Amino acid sequence: MKDSAAPGKGESYHVQHSPFGAFASFTIGLVDAPGGFGQSLRGAAKQNVYVGFRQGQSAEWQLLPFLTPPKSQEGAFTGDTTVVAPPRGFNSLRPADYQRSLGWASDTWRAAGDRFGFSLLSPFGQVPDPAKMKPAESRFHLAPLVTAWIEYDNRNGQNPVELIFGVGHGDDTLRPLGDTDDSLAGFASGGKFGYATKPGRGVQLRQGFDVLAPKFRDYRGLLVIAGETALIFTVPAGQRKRFPLVLGFYAAGPVTTGLTASYAYTRLFRDLEAVLGHGLKNYSRYEKLATVRDRELAASRLDADQQFLIAQATHSYLGSTQLLWHDGKPLWVVNEGEYRMINTFDLTVDHVFFELAWQPWAVRDTLDLFVRRYSYRDQHGLSFTHDMGVNDFFTPAGRSSYECDEIHGCFSHMTMEQLLNWVLTAVTYAEHTGDQRWLRANKKILVACADSLRRRDDPNPKLRDGILKHDTARVGHGSEITTYDSLDVSLGQARNNLYLTVKTLGAWVLLEKAFARLGDATASAGAGDTADLLARTLTNKFERDTGYFPAVFEKGNRSRILPAVEGFVYPLFLGYKDATDPQGRFAPLFRQLKQHLTQALQPGVCLDPASGGWKMSSTSTNTWFSKIAIAQHVIRVLFPEAMTTAARAGDRVHADWQRTPGCGVDAMCDQIRSDTGITCGSRYYPRGVTAFLWLRE
Amino acid sequence: MKDSAAPGKGESYHVQHSPFGAFASFTIGLVDAPGGFGQSLRGAAKQNVYVGFRQGQSAEWQLLPFLTPPKSQEGAFTGDTTVVAPPRGFNSLRPADYQRSLGWASDTWRAAGDRFGFSLLSPFGQVPDPAKMKPAESRFHLAPLVTAWIEYDNRNGQNPVELIFGVGHGDDTLRPLGDTDDSLAGFASGGKFGYATKPGRGVQLRQGFDVLAPKFRDYRGLLVIAGETALIFTVPAGQRKRFPLVLGFYAAGPVTTGLTASYAYTRLFRDLEAVLGHGLKNYSRYEKLATVRDRELAASRLDADQQFLIAQATHSYLGSTQLLWHDGKPLWVVNEGEYRMINTFDLTVDHVFFELAWQPWAVRDTLDLFVRRYSYRDQHGLSFTHDMGVNDFFTPAGRSSYECDEIHGCFSHMTMEQLLNWVLTAVTYAEHTGDQRWLRANKKILVACADSLRRRDDPNPKLRDGILKHDTARVGHGSEITTYDSLDVSLGQARNNLYLTVKTLGAWVLLEKAFARLGDATASAGAGDTADLLARTLTNKFERDTGYFPAVFEKGNRSRILPAVEGFVYPLFLGYKDATDPQGRFAPLFRQLKQHLTQALQPGVCLDPASGGWKMSSTSTNTWFSKIAIAQHVIRVLFPEAMTTAARAGDRVHADWQRTPGCGVDAMCDQIRSDTGITCGSRYYPRGVTAFLWLRE
Repeated sequence: MKDSAAPGKGESYHVQHSPFGAFASFTIGLVDAPGGFGQSLRGAAKQNVYVGFRQGQSAEWQLLPFLTPPKSQEGAFTGDTTVVAPPRGFNSLRPADYQRSLGWASDTWRAAGDRFGFSLLSPFGQVPDPAKMKPAESRFHLAPLVTAWIEYDNRNGQNPVELIFGVGHGDDTLRPLGDTDDSLAGFASGGKFGYATKPGRGVQLRQGFDVLAPKFRDYRGLLVIAGETALIFTVPAGQRKRFPLVLGFYAAGPVTTGLTASYAYTRLFRDLEAVLGHGLKNYSRYEKLATVRDRELAASRLDADQQFLIAQATHSYLGSTQLLWHDGKPLWVVNEGEYRMINTFDLTVDHVFFELAWQPWAVRDTLDLFVRRYSYRDQHGLSFTHDMGVNDFFTPAGRSSYECDEIHGCFSHMTMEQLLNWVLTAVTYAEHTGDQRWLRANKKILVACADSLRRRDDPNPKLRDGILKHDTARVGHGSEITTYDSLDVSLGQARNNLYLTVKTLGAWVLLEKAFARLGDATASAGAGDTADLLARTLTNKFERDTGYFPAVFEKGNRSRILPAVEGFVYPLFLGYKDATDPQGRFAPLFRQLKQHLTQALQPGVCLDPASGGWKMSSTSTNTWFSKIAIAQHVIRVLFPEAMTTAARAGDRVHADWQRTPGCGVDAMCDQIRSDTGITCGSRYYPRGVTAFLWLRE
Repeated sequence: MKDSAAPGKGESYHVQHSPFGAFASFTIGLVDAPGGFGQSLRGAAKQNVYVGFRQGQSAEWQLLPFLTPPKSQEGAFTGDTTVVAPPRGFNSLRPADYQRSLGWASDTWRAAGDRFGFSLLSPFGQVPDPAKMKPAESRFHLAPLVTAWIEYDNRNGQNPVELIFGVGHGDDTLRPLGDTDDSLAGFASGGKFGYATKPGRGVQLRQGFDVLAPKFRDYRGLLVIAGETALIFTVPAGQRKRFPLVLGFYAAGPVTTGLTASYAYTRLFRDLEAVLGHGLKNYSRYEKLATVRDRELAASRLDADQQFLIAQATHSYLGSTQLLWHDGKPLWVVNEGEYRMINTFDLTVDHVFFELAWQPWAVRDTLDLFVRRYSYRDQHGLSFTHDMGVNDFFTPAGRSSYECDEIHGCFSHMTMEQLLNWVLTAVTYAEHTGDQRWLRANKKILVACADSLRRRDDPNPKLRDGILKHDTARVGHGSEITTYDSLDVSLGQARNNLYLTVKTLGAWVLLEKAFARLGDATASAGAGDTADLLARTLTNKFERDTGYFPAVFEKGNRSRILPAVEGFVYPLFLGYKDATDPQGRFAPLFRQLKQHLTQALQPGVCLDPASGGWKMSSTSTNTWFSKIAIAQHVIRVLFPEAMTTAARAGDRVHADWQRTPGCGVDAMCDQIRSDTGITCGSRYYPRGVTAFLWLRE
């Protein structure tokens, strides 16, 4: 990362170190906070993590600040409630004492003049379709593990230096792994998670109430009734040593209901020990993959703040991924961060840019599952549910976990939004991958979507202007919302909504291309006509007096919003020149949008006057990083004139939000108060990977 | 229960409502505290439990005090942090508003002039050997469920009354069970636990952020992303209705390591739904079994306090039981309460009286596993480990999870104690059940035990006096301890220990009988001789000046202890008249013990001067209920003259300790500060079932 020393003041943030598809994270990084192994959680675990060194056996331990003093369990056994809570007698390193650098696939701490180092690697890469991968390849890609190393350069030292890596979880005692697999030195919590290195000289196990100074030792020096565990590594004077670590997860058996499924990796690994052994055996291959990713990001033209945001977002994305196996086939899930909704379509459509680079089959499979199980027809025609369930529970066919009836605002239906999401995701997938076979197989769905879109404009063809304005009957006396439900009405209402209208324009542009690709010139021309009609309608919504578009074409709304251009990200991503040329087919609209954006990207409108951060809406301080990232990309590429100095300063603000505790307490956060930088929702969230788009600039 | 109205002031205590062998509890009862479904926990779960009624849809809910306001998850979705935490707007019933009565297999709350009732049943009975039970019988006995009912007598009412039973666990959203099994109305947490009734008229499902007044409802009236769930039952005006409930658990797949085993019930039930369905189908059979148990205890001659203690102890015992399946055979475990050590031998020897009544095969299987895997030989000969592991981790053969080297006091080895425990448990099992085949098969173990006992007295036969005084080499420079390790030295040191000496006497008496039963007259006579030698030695330890035995025959110790007579419980239980006749074989010893006890059972010695409760030792305020119960039994039967008025008042004190929050916060507690009644260890503990002995008086 370039210029990584520049930030750092007040830096304190969790990072999810996560395997691909295990819905699991080893989370640490927030200063003076516990973390550790978390399976299917909505935030960081609460284990003590011991990482550090001491320069000789009589020296004080120097530990990274990842633990809070656990309540000693010793007193529970001895009845002596005066026993002081261990661990104690160590120096908790302060942020000024160490340097941390987050790479795309690594998170590294250095201290003691760079002699001490600790790094967690979460290697990721292109994952082939699991339905077709050979077992060996599958084992590499799907192993539920992350790797790490700990090192000390003691070449100039006079005494042996000890290193520690350990985990303590007072209530959930861990067990020494060597009892079940003598090729592993480390500890595990039942069969669910654990950490290991290879046994050997210079590697010792520790377990006790106070793992730094164990008072009680059994025949092998441990006390297995105690909650705190660690590996102690010795680096002799005159040597530099780096020790590999593997951190693994394992969730056996069916983990979901509704659709009963198990983790794909359970077909490849017998148990946790097999995972850890595999990780140690393939350690250097995983390390190399992480290095490739780190270098790719570092070599990009993005600045340090932008690189940090992509790295942090990718870590939290991986932590939300879940590759299951159902009925003999892969079942792909991205869980929605702290909400843990399954394949929320609002996220799928935003993850598409990232997923098409690394696992395009995931996009295809999710689209198929939406068609097969999570689609429905209302009075206007076809649409799709907001999500597929929550917390490992797949909701019944045609029903989401989120959408309620008879209400306005949050928790209402998102019928128009999800219809657009299917069209946009589907065509983006098919055009980007060239998977024409899939496109052909789904032609009738696309046709039904187009029909449904038109009817949501108006059931009477003569009254259509392109704008979606007829709510689904599912809302009853309520009204449809958009994905921006928790912002103010400027983005929350679906009907006559600027954001959705431009997104609708994007959908018609994509349908025009898709129908052409399918050889249906009539349908393609029809879609093109609707796009043009809609663009014309939209230009008439422009307020000539103010030079802005209103956020909602109703009730004199005067909110100003940045997602006015979100709908252009799809044609931009697919390289559709005609639709994205400011001088082209939509030139009048582009001129208006340029004015809208140039005015909006000013402090007090869509730049927060206090922080300078980007705001989705001029009338709400709730702003969403993932959507900022899309807006930044579209604006930087299509409307560069709008990028004022103040607007360009946003990256530093957005990165500072994420790397300080206001968001950092929950790793990557999406919903943030633009004035304070404190998260107000969507914590531990995968969607920040929209920033991956920046690598295309 | 007789006189159940007498206590009650300040009553507030958790009870574990637990299936047989599932290591699981539905725990509620502590006032203003959450509880709910807990699997393999060391204390109560933290779920909100909704139980109550409202007299009409516009009336306020009247709820038992089993919930704390959960942090609303609504704000996490809406970004609105001002949303007040639901639930609210209900009346939390105060202890004065309801009556609670704990039966042997039921826990019942009544309110609204007895019109409202709620009861949790944990039926238990004689369980045949699981290795030989037929599937249908196994399903009945081993189903991981408890039952419950909720009712209202609305015969005089003018409006329909609503009843509620529900569970809320903010982070772990539950799912409606009907989606996977339409014969169930209720909710489940994944496949792990859940509650259900039969669907039908008058039964409604509720799920929301505020389950009492849900703001958001989906197509079926629920909001499945929200953490709080409930069943709402309607009792029409003019009717009395009782609704059955089943509360089930399910832990799939291997749950232990070291010895890899799964729950026995997983062989009988496919999943949680199958458990719940079975429970509803067999509801009345389970209810009848609970009624039989309740009546048995109520019909006993014990007073209300004693009955309460037995009932509460039995509930916590069941919560610690775990019937596994390993290598095609049953594997019996009792977990040690909050410590979760596996089959701690100190508990096995105390549970034997209860277990021989209900599942004698469990005693046999545990003894066999101690021989097969958890025995060892030191310089003196055979002995056994303190336990078999901890927290579902079976330690390596010959090693406990608890015992450490080179120390004095807690966490040291208990070689003498466990050797005695095997002898006492084995002969008690064989003599009580008449299982002579097993006794014969284990003759060589008994012979090895006798040899080991003698050598721990002194390796040189000429120097033997019967008292164990030679520590195992495993302690290194440390020293052996007894099960009373956390009391002061008066009970903690094994060598020359009064408690262990009388226990040794008990062991020789039992060995004398066992060898006679085995037809080995020589060995029997030898054991009898050693018993007599030991009794003589012991009488010489009596302090004629004080009229007491010292607790330790070393260093001028003058502590006075009640477990001086614990060793007599075994011959007493087995009806050995010669060894328990105060005028018989050990008459001189009995005279001394009578004096010891009569003096000890005075305030300021072994009755706490503040509370009046029984103290194990005059020099420690740490007292253990399970051991008090044994002492009470032995003293009431063999030394009735020692039962002063002050001593007899102990039952009320001990019951009050358990039913007020000092212990009640952790259900049955064993280690208690005798001055305050507050637990100081051994919480959520199974061993209180020693009180079952009282039913023999």
